[in-house]
Formats: sequence, C-alpha cells, structure tokens
Amino acid sequence: MRLPHGEVKTPVYMPVGTKGAMKGVTYQEMDDLGCKLLLANTYHLAYKPGGDLLEKVGGLHNFVNWKNNILTDSGGFQMVSMSQLSEVTEEGVTFESPYDRSKMHLRPEDSIHTQNQIGADIIMALDDVVKTATAGLRMQEASERTTRWLDRDIAAHKRKHDQNLFPIVQGGVDSKLREQSLNDLIQREANGYAIGGLAGGEDKADFWKTVVQCTTKLPKNKPRYLMGVGYPVDIVVCSCLGVDMFDCVFSTRTARFGTAFTEHGFLKLKNNEIANVFEPIQKGCQCQACKNYTQSYLHYLIAKEEVACHLISIHNLNYLIQLMLNLHQSIIDGKLTGFVNGFLKNWYQREGKIPQWVIEALEYARLPIEQL
Amino acid sequence: MRLPHGEVKTPVYMPVGTKGAMKGVTYQEMDDLGCKLLLANTYHLAYKPGGDLLEKVGGLHNFVNWKNNILTDSGGFQMVSMSQLSEVTEEGVTFESPYDRSKMHLRPEDSIHTQNQIGADIIMALDDVVKTATAGLRMQEASERTTRWLDRDIAAHKRKHDQNLFPIVQGGVDSKLREQSLNDLIQREANGYAIGGLAGGEDKADFWKTVVQCTTKLPKNKPRYLMGVGYPVDIVVCSCLGVDMFDCVFSTRTARFGTAFTEHGFLKLKNNEIANVFEPIQKGCQCQACKNYTQSYLHYLIAKEEVACHLISIHNLNYLIQLMLNLHQSIIDGKLTGFVNGFLKNWYQREGKIPQWVIEALEYARLPIEQL
Repeated sequence: MRLPHGEVKTPVYMPVGTKGAMKGVTYQEMDDLGCKLLLANTYHLAYKPGGDLLEKVGGLHNFVNWKNNILTDSGGFQMVSMSQLSEVTEEGVTFESPYDRSKMHLRPEDSIHTQNQIGADIIMALDDVVKTATAGLRMQEASERTTRWLDRDIAAHKRKHDQNLFPIVQGGVDSKLREQSLNDLIQREANGYAIGGLAGGEDKADFWKTVVQCTTKLPKNKPRYLMGVGYPVDIVVCSCLGVDMFDCVFSTRTARFGTAFTEHGFLKLKNNEIANVFEPIQKGCQCQACKNYTQSYLHYLIAKEEVACHLISIHNLNYLIQLMLNLHQSIIDGKLTGFVNGFLKNWYQREGKIPQWVIEALEYARLPIEQL
Repeated sequence: MRLPHGEVKTPVYMPVGTKGAMKGVTYQEMDDLGCKLLLANTYHLAYKPGGDLLEKVGGLHNFVNWKNNILTDSGGFQMVSMSQLSEVTEEGVTFESPYDRSKMHLRPEDSIHTQNQIGADIIMALDDVVKTATAGLRMQEASERTTRWLDRDIAAHKRKHDQNLFPIVQGGVDSKLREQSLNDLIQREANGYAIGGLAGGEDKADFWKTVVQCTTKLPKNKPRYLMGVGYPVDIVVCSCLGVDMFDCVFSTRTARFGTAFTEHGFLKLKNNEIANVFEPIQKGCQCQACKNYTQSYLHYLIAKEEVACHLISIHNLNYLIQLMLNLHQSIIDGKLTGFVNGFLKNWYQREGKIPQWVIEALEYARLPIEQL
C-alpha cells in the first residue's frame, strides 16, 4: 500500500495513539519497532490541541514529529464509547465534554475539515455508529445515514490529492443491511474501505461471515480495513479472509494490566510463579524488554513502576508488528497455509483445541487447518 | 572515582532508582544519558523482591541488567520518611509495612547483610536518622548511636574486597555534635564518607556552613557524598565546597509535575502560554525530548499521557548529568570560576539577583562571584 509518507506492507496492524501519543511509548520507539502506520483520534485532537493549532504547525506529522503514515478516525467511534454524552441527529452529532460540559458539534463537514487540518494520510468518513447488538429500525437508519453522510464527507473533502478518504461499511450483522451498505458505498469514490460495526461482542460465526461478506464485495485492488480488531487470532484469520488493515488498543491496554503476548498465547506477568522465572517473555524476541529483562524482574515492577507498562507495551506492539510482517512474508513466499497452521498450533497448544469458528473460517478461505 | 563497575567522574549526580527501577525511565536510557552511578534503596528491595532472590540471581546488577555502578542506601532514610511506621531502639529499627502491617526488623547487621546480597559498589552504614530540625538530647543520642551502629556495620560487612562501606556524618546543624561525629567517624575504616541530616528544610546559611565543616574535616583523598541534595544551584555550590557526590529524587519528581530544568531556571510546561511555544525545552540540548519535540507538544501531553513524564524526566536527568560533566571539565581545565559565574548568571537572570548565601559560600571557597 503506497501512502504519502511511505510504503506500508499489508496486512498491517496499526497501533493506536489516541491523543497524539501512544500510551507509554514514544514515537521514536514506534519507529524503531518498524511501525509504518499509526492511528490518531480526531475527536480528542479536535478538543485539544485543536485543528487550528495543528494546521498552523503544518499538521499532526510535524506536531508529534512522526515521519511515517497516520490514519485518523472520524470521531464516530465516540458516539458509542461516549454514548451517554452524545446526541445524534441527521445534521450530525453533538458531544458534551466530560471535562467542562461544553458542547462539540461534529457534522460530517466538521470531521472532514478537522481531518484536513490534521493532515493524516488516510482519513475516515464520519459514520453513524451504533452498538453491534442494535437491531431493527435504528440499525437500518444508522446504516442508511452513514451513506448520506458519506456524500457530505466527499463534498467537504478539500485535500483529495494527498489524503485518502475511506468510507465505512455499516449494517451490523444483518446481512441484508450489510449488502445494502456495501452496494451504496462501492458506487462512491474511494481509495479504500473500512468494515465498521464489528468487534462489538457479536457471535464469532456472525463475525467472520460478515467479514467475508464485506471482503467479497469490496474491490480487491483497494485496501480493506477491519476496525477495532486486534486479538492476534482474529487478525490472522481475517487476514486470510482478505482484510488488509487492523487497529485496536488491546495490545497496549492489556500490557498496562501486566499481560504479554507470546507465541503460546497470553502470559500474565502478575502471577506469583513468575517471580522465579529468569527467562525473557519470549525467547528469541528482539524487543527491548526481552533482550534486557527477565519475567521475574517485570513481575517485580508491575503495579509499582510505570516502566513495566512501558516495557510490556513495547513487547506487545513488537509482537503484533512482527506477526504481520511474517504473515506478509509467508504470502509472498506462497507459504501462508504452513504459517497459519504453525501459528494456531502454538497459540492453542495449552488449550489443546482450535476453536470451531477458526477452522470453519479458514476452510472457507481454502486454508486447510489440522485440529490439534 | 574508581569503582568495581567502572570509573565515575566527580562531582557526580546519582539518579534515584528507588525500587530497582527509575520512575518512568529505563536503565538503557540511563546508560544512553551517560549515567555511571545509580542509587537504589535497600528498604524497598529488602521488602520485594528480597535479598535472598537478589543473591540467587547474582545481585541487583544482574536482576535489573545494569552494567555500571550502584550505590545502596541503608534503609535509614525511611526512619524519617516513614517515621509514623517505625520505631528505633539501640538494637535497630522496626518498620511496620504500609501494605500488610507485617514487621521488618532492620538492625545494622541486617542492613549490611541485605546490602551484601544486593551487591552494590557502594553501600551505606545504617545510621540513626532524625529530622534536621530535631534538637537537644535526641539529636545527640542519634549522632552517638550512629557511631555505635557503624562499628556493628563494619563488623558485619562480609564483602570488603568489592563493596565500599561509607559511614554517615550526623549531628544536624549543631556544630559541636557535627565535630564529635566527624572525629568519631574518621577514626574508623572507610573508603568514603557521607554527610547526612541536611536538606531537611534548614536555613541556607546553616546548610552551607555545615557542609564546609564536614568537607574540611573529612579526608580529601576519599569521596564525600552529600545525601539528598539535588537542586542545581545547591549542587554547583557544594561541589565548590568540596562535595563529590549528590543524590535526589527532585529531578524526576518535578518532571512528573511538568517542570523542566533549563539553564535559566525552571520551566513550568503546564502554563497556558507554553501552548504556543514551538521550541524545545532548551535549545542545543541533545536529549530525546529536546531533539524531537516542542514545548507546545509536551504541554499538550502533560496530565494526559505518561509519555510526557517520561520525556521530561529524561530531559531533567540529562540536564543534571551534563551539568556535572561540564563542572568536572571546568575543574580539569582550570576554569571553574568562569563556569560557576556563567551558570549563576543564567540561572538567576530572571530573578535579577543571586542569593546572599550563594555569594558567601563561594567567597568562602575562594570563588569570587559577580552579583548581577
């Protein structure tokens, strides 16, 4: 995928730097980890430091001194995460600030204007986001309104030459609404598409089938971005189903709670038995935490020193970035089936069983998986 | 100063990694900053992970993967900082844990045993520490008990070949008690000495005169360590009075509150006018924060993202480490007077006046200072 700030190998995991900073990790460190595309959040940036200041300094890349690519969301996700403080009408969404109760109006035109000021390489359409479990008329309204807002987004977009606008497919897990949304969106101009409204607690069978419905219909020559998905198994499976881009705060959030990613699944560094494990989180891992420290030391630091969150966050981000690069390489080498089988075998070794939905999804993708 | 883990240029500022980790800064970063000597805290390490575990992994250097030197305090300081939870007798001190109310007995023999297990390059005698403002019989008792405990410390010390034990001069700001303590201590074997019981809110005239009393009496060919002093002006002045080593949590604590050290004094990055300052904290500074970010960006991050504390901590530590290296070089070059005058001129430029105690102390040290 070629973007204004350099090429990005896909499939790609995008770390989330919500407020113009990663949680506990500097941008230099993100660059050292090989990250080429970071996510930032329009709602938070619009609130502070504000679009005008960012425009004045030549955009977010300059402000945060990040030379690689940035994707900004539209602010739409906050309609769900801050639903108690927001009100949606056909015109747009109004947020009440959790800090000082002031109001922020976010119409499609406002979201695009702010994203033009921020200057990200990929910007997202403002969609009407509802919880995945929402059913009936409200879901239909949200899905159709997303299309109407997309037309306003496209009309408002002032930097089509250097910022790629991605529409977002909605419709929840209702296949008819999804189909309608897909049909509407692929008729509009776009350099890539996002699949929204998943990773909201839906059944895993509904999840993967909806992903397939979208990747089948969306143009194969344009990037497809599955929003909010960051669990390693989900990323691997959905990459096989045709998804190119992922994002999620899970890797850094779980690090702050002391959980590290390993090839054999999650490692809870808080557990008492870890006090006597004088090995790195994962042997052979080249991250700062694994090259320098034992599990015992990290166990001792957790809940005492923020350095622990920092080190485990770096490990988890490195894990996902390397996982994607290895996945990418296995596709280039024509060895995807072997790679995915090896990954799943390791990941589910302790549980002794690969979940049925994973096997079914990969069967659909013509990747035969051996049960353990 | 030659220590088992490498040479240290003096005067030196020792950053404080209380619990086996710096607040918000990794050991790799400390090494990158040129730090050659770090402080760690026996009371906290004895509590967790415990001396036995540290001995098992070959000491704190191995546990935290730090190849340069370490100094451990004796646990004595906690008699003051945790005075509500401690009880001192001739035998030793008993702490009640703030976590689970369990008791920890710390006799001189216990402190030295744990410090032998930790394996620091410099270990401190357990002293009977009282608040600087304490007067009369209790101060006298504390001062004399410190000497009695020192004899027990020396007798208990099992690693005289590779760990340097420093006695601690007590006596508050009472010159007779100080003199007695000095006379007692210099008769005992030691590779260096510490000046304790200052930086406790005493008058600045009492402070510098007590420092002079100690540095005059203590052997010139052995390092003299002024405990708990880390304010840049105090470090510069006391270096001129003959002090070789300093430590203080001030640089990192004040960073966490958003205050940065600059050659013109302190910079409060929280102030609203900083939002529009698109310059580094200090021009020409080679730290990670100054090379990459503006004051505006750091202002925006403060109180939102721990990355801000991390970056400002690195800046402040870099500031002090560089200040000491420059001070060291000016002594080598025979240009100390010019260096100190330049430093004070910059530091007090905004206030327009150098404090009287600074001028008097430096006059005593035969370093003529020009008032602004």
